[in-house]
This record gives sequence, C-alpha cells and structure tokens, in this order.
Amino acid sequence: MALTRSMMRRAAVAWQKGAGNRIPTTRVVNTAMNDNCPILISPSLVSLDLPEIWPTNSTTHDFPLTCKCSDEQTAAIIDGKSIADEIMLRISCEVRRMKESIGKVPGLAVILVGQRRDSQTYVRNKIKACEEAGIKSLITELPDNCEDDEVLNALSRFNKEPSVHGILVQLPLPQHLNVGKILDLLSLEKDVDGFHPLNMGNLAMRGREPLFIPCTPKGCIELLIRSGLEIMGKKAVVIGRSNIVGLPTSLLLQRHHATVSIVHAFTRNPEQITCEADIVVAAAGVPNLVRGNWLKPGAVVIDVGTNPIEDPGCEHGYRLTGDVCYEEAVRVASAITPVPGGVGPMTIAMLLSNTLDSAKRAYDFP
Amino acid sequence: MALTRSMMRRAAVAWQKGAGNRIPTTRVVNTAMNDNCPILISPSLVSLDLPEIWPTNSTTHDFPLTCKCSDEQTAAIIDGKSIADEIMLRISCEVRRMKESIGKVPGLAVILVGQRRDSQTYVRNKIKACEEAGIKSLITELPDNCEDDEVLNALSRFNKEPSVHGILVQLPLPQHLNVGKILDLLSLEKDVDGFHPLNMGNLAMRGREPLFIPCTPKGCIELLIRSGLEIMGKKAVVIGRSNIVGLPTSLLLQRHHATVSIVHAFTRNPEQITCEADIVVAAAGVPNLVRGNWLKPGAVVIDVGTNPIEDPGCEHGYRLTGDVCYEEAVRVASAITPVPGGVGPMTIAMLLSNTLDSAKRAYDFP
Repeated sequence: MALTRSMMRRAAVAWQKGAGNRIPTTRVVNTAMNDNCPILISPSLVSLDLPEIWPTNSTTHDFPLTCKCSDEQTAAIIDGKSIADEIMLRISCEVRRMKESIGKVPGLAVILVGQRRDSQTYVRNKIKACEEAGIKSLITELPDNCEDDEVLNALSRFNKEPSVHGILVQLPLPQHLNVGKILDLLSLEKDVDGFHPLNMGNLAMRGREPLFIPCTPKGCIELLIRSGLEIMGKKAVVIGRSNIVGLPTSLLLQRHHATVSIVHAFTRNPEQITCEADIVVAAAGVPNLVRGNWLKPGAVVIDVGTNPIEDPGCEHGYRLTGDVCYEEAVRVASAITPVPGGVGPMTIAMLLSNTLDSAKRAYDFP
Repeated sequence: MALTRSMMRRAAVAWQKGAGNRIPTTRVVNTAMNDNCPILISPSLVSLDLPEIWPTNSTTHDFPLTCKCSDEQTAAIIDGKSIADEIMLRISCEVRRMKESIGKVPGLAVILVGQRRDSQTYVRNKIKACEEAGIKSLITELPDNCEDDEVLNALSRFNKEPSVHGILVQLPLPQHLNVGKILDLLSLEKDVDGFHPLNMGNLAMRGREPLFIPCTPKGCIELLIRSGLEIMGKKAVVIGRSNIVGLPTSLLLQRHHATVSIVHAFTRNPEQITCEADIVVAAAGVPNLVRGNWLKPGAVVIDVGTNPIEDPGCEHGYRLTGDVCYEEAVRVASAITPVPGGVGPMTIAMLLSNTLDSAKRAYDFP
C-alpha cells in the first residue's frame, strides 16, 4: 500500500494530537511541490536555532517532592575540589620537570572581552591556577564595544607566538561579535578549550581523536572514572545542549558507550526521561531545575550548573547554586557533585592539563 | 560530608549491582594516584572504540510478539521512491538551467576500492542517477590491495579538477586503508557525503552550518518534513551510531529540536527505550532487529537498514530487508518507510542535491 495524500494527512493529524501547545501545527506537505519552491524543503540548520529558554514557572518546579527519597542523605559527595587539587599537583610536577629538562614552560593566553562579572571571575581563577602550576599566562582584555577585527588580531598574535600553547577566548562574547568566525581562526593546535568544530567533529566520530577534549565534559568523565562509577552500558541523560558543555558531554559519554539522551528546553516532560537515568549531567544553567523526583533512586548526579543567586547573607551578596536541587537530590542519588567544589575546579584542572599536553606536543617532550 | 574512600566504594558497589553481565567490574579508584600513573586516568577515545556487535541471539529477538498491535495495517507507507523521483526531476531541471545559462554542469567523482558487491551496486546506482539528472560522473576504481597513496593520489586529482564538485569515497574501505587520513584529505568544498569531521562538527554545533549534510540523515529528515510529521519536541530514538548514518542522524534530529536518545550495541534493554519514541530511526545494519513490540503504537518508523538476505526465490538469490520487522511494525506504527523504496532512493537524491549545491556554490550560480 503506497502512501496516499489522505492517509498521510491522517497520520500527521494523529501525530499532532500527541503534540503539546508549544509545537506549531504542521500542514501535510504535498510531495508534488510547486516549481517555485526550493528543491528540498528541509530548512537551513542555523535558521532552526532557537533561544534555549527553559520553562522557569512550569509545574515541574512547583510540585511537592513526592519522590521515593530517603529521609536522610544517601549520596556520597564526589569531592571535585580535592580530585582537582591532586591533578593540579601532578601538573605542577610535570611543568617543573619540563622546565628543568628543556628550559620551557607551557603558556596559556586568554582573551577577555567586556566587563561580565562572571567571566572576569572565571578568568581570574584560571590565571591564578596557571600561576600555581608554573604555567605562564598572558591576558588580552578588550572593551565591550570592540570589533571582530580587534579580537581576531589578538588571536592572530597568540596563534603565532611560540611560547603560547593554549588560547582561550572567554565565552560568552558580546552579542555583536561573530563567535563562529573568531573560534574558526583559533589555531587548532592551541584550541585547549576544544571548541573548534574540527575538534568537536573528531570528538563525535568513532575512530577519531580530537586534539583537545572540552574541559568541563572531560572533567565530568574524569570524576566518574576516578570515583569508580562505570559509564559503559549505563543510561545517561545530559540536561542542556550548549556547544561548550551539553553537546560535548553527550558526545563524550557516547564514546564511553553510555546510552545517551539529551534533554533540552524543547523536551516535553524532561523529568520523566531524567528519572530513568543512571547518570544525570545537569548543564542547563537553570538554578534548581532538577528536583529530587527527577532522579532515579541511586542515580549518579553531576551538576555542572554554577548559577549566581542573590543572597545578602553572603560575602559578595550572592552565592553559587547548581542546576540540581541539592537538598533533595542528596537524599535520592547514590553520588553527587556539590556546587561549588564539584565540576568547577575540575574544569580548570582540565584546562591546565590540555595546556600542558599542548606544550608537550609542541616541544615533543615525553 | 566529603567523600571518603569507603563511602565511594559503597556507592560504586551499589552502582555495579545495577550492571548487566556485559559490564566489567570496576574497582574503586583511589583518587590519590601513584606518581607513575598518567595525570588523568580517562583513556584516549580511540582506545574505547569497540566493535559494534549487536546481540543477534538475544532474548529480545526470541520473545513472542505481545505488543499492543492491531490485527491490520495501521501505518501509512512513506513512499521514499516517489518523493526521491520528484526531487530528482527538480534537480534535472536545475542542471539543465545551469547548462543553458553558463554552459556548465555539476560533476561527481567516485572512488571505489575493491570488489564488494554491495559497494559496486551502490556506486552503479549513483552513477546511473547522475546520468539521468545530467550530472557528469567520473569513477576511479582501485584494486582491493591498493595502498593509501593510490587512493590519496586519486583524491588529489579530483580535489584539483575544477569540473568536479563532489567527491565520494565509497565506504567501507578495505581494512588495511586509513579511512581517517583519506577523508581528511578530501576537499571540504567537495565533501558531498558530509563525512569530514569539520562538516560533522558544524552539523553538531548550534549557530553553525555544515557545507554538506550527510545524505542519508538529510533524506530521513526530508521524508519526515514532506510527510507533515513534526520533529520539534518529539522523542526520537536513533538505533545505531555509525559515523555515516546513526551519529549524523542523531545530531540532525537534535538541531531540529527532537529529544534524541541513541541506542547502540552496548545499550541494555534497547526495546524499552525504543518503545517510548515518537520517531524511530533504525540504522544498526541488523536485519529485523526492531520488532513490533519495540514500538510505541503510532510511532513513525524510518528504516535505514538495507540488509541482503539470501532468498533463492529472488532474482539475484537475495532480497533486501530492513532493520525493522516490517510485517509487525506496519501494524503498530502510524507511518513507516519500506525497504527497498524508502530511505535508499532518498540517499541518492540527497547526494545529487549536495553535488548540485556544490556546483552552484563553485560557479556562484543562483
């Protein structure tokens, strides 16, 4: 039986019935297209890019906690800070060994555009970590209203500078800048953030190895492995699909043979999908998005969120909170990363590790 | 409460209890590592690549069909052949218009290594389709025992040849050849298969557009859209994660805002995950892997499998069968692609469409 137009319409109508309010109704497309139409009707991918706006006042946030959770803490706390410290110590030793052997140290260059407080904090922490590890750091600060060319010029200089082995363009950049064009220019051999599309392609494809794995995903995997938590064959849900965390984390978990589902702002009933996961990586950037009843009892929770929440009682007037409602999750999960002190320190340690690897590669230092 | 070694061991043991037989037991890793260990314990990604062997005699194949399926056919058949024919007709018109306007036609070059019967058939079909559409085709055939250099030389010639706008290295290549090295040399502007890692990275990353989208995934999406089947917000399960179909299909569905899960050979209970999907794309290369009770009633099924099955009653001694048990699925799904005549013809149409786009780009022809 071949598809007739009326049958296809029936199928599409039945299909639409399952759709929520947010999905626009689609007419059944007649396959015999008008000559003025484009040959293919699939749109360009960039035209599909929609702002990732999570439903903040959805009922999923308001329901009472009815999960099968314990009255007491069940989760072991994965201490990212102490694991990162140990890695940093090892990196320092390697940097010293390099300096003593060949008289060189790794160099990291940072380009910071604008005055975002969070970006300034991140950059400060990275520079400080470099100093502690003996890695040379350089920083170029540009004003909020600078043009693409100024960023590209700074980038070109660092690309050519042989004592720089890693270059980091602190994201997000101001809206008016062309982030794609800027990251494309970044020398692949110095892309220690691993955000270049060629590195991302090599991360995704079996049989290939990227020069650098993005730092946060790499840190998450290192935490899981060091904690003795198996990845292969486990159901993993990654919440969020940003180019810098969600996407590469899902790709990396898949290379480790997890069965990966990606939950995003257009996912219906994200709590249902998340509830089946053995491993939950929360990277939506929405404070307390993941409630206790989003979690399967015994799940492992990696909380990538670092959301500043106003709190007059805290030193700077705010405190950091994760994407996971920690007080609830800690009574359901078997292991969880805290915020702060979980993924954050690991991200910086991985950045330094990538920079060290890059310098070793450049100097052919074993 | 910080993580103590004994707590983490307990968490890991609880974790292991949930693991099936196929998962090797992992010891709890002491975070204080020995100095002789590498700094990070995450392995290289290539070292993780395991053969994708689907359990062919698993119980999932033996159970009786107990799904909530109808006694009669419920599914509309998505007629890929007729949709592809219509697209091919439109491509032919565009090729003619190009020839009449600027005296040029698109050119596709194919490199075929060895004597694989299926590859020979695929290549023959592609060349035939080119002829029908007025696209110039070139073919270089190399023996099974040829070296990397011979393939690379053929590729270099086509890269330089201005009348060639698309180059296709028919996969799989013989085991002894370095497929990564070969595909890396392929000019990005002529990568009409979209298999270059830079194209794959640009397919994956929001805000970016690959020069070419891989043909089979592109064909699947075009089929869904033309059939009026919404993708945004739907749960999609992609079965299989090959670099040429499964991976790019999952990335493309995600760009279209589906909630995507990827099922592979290491997935436990793949039928449970698949059973929740609104859209199932089967690309495992395992005949009849997907049974009726793997499907949610009303699901849309895109069957990418084209597995030759011996059948003395057929003309060439074999017939093609999909990854989906069609007789069962047709009574559960709301729409399904047949094999043959579903995704196959669309793949070729997309190849020609990519080649036409490439030629238009090269000649700046609108």
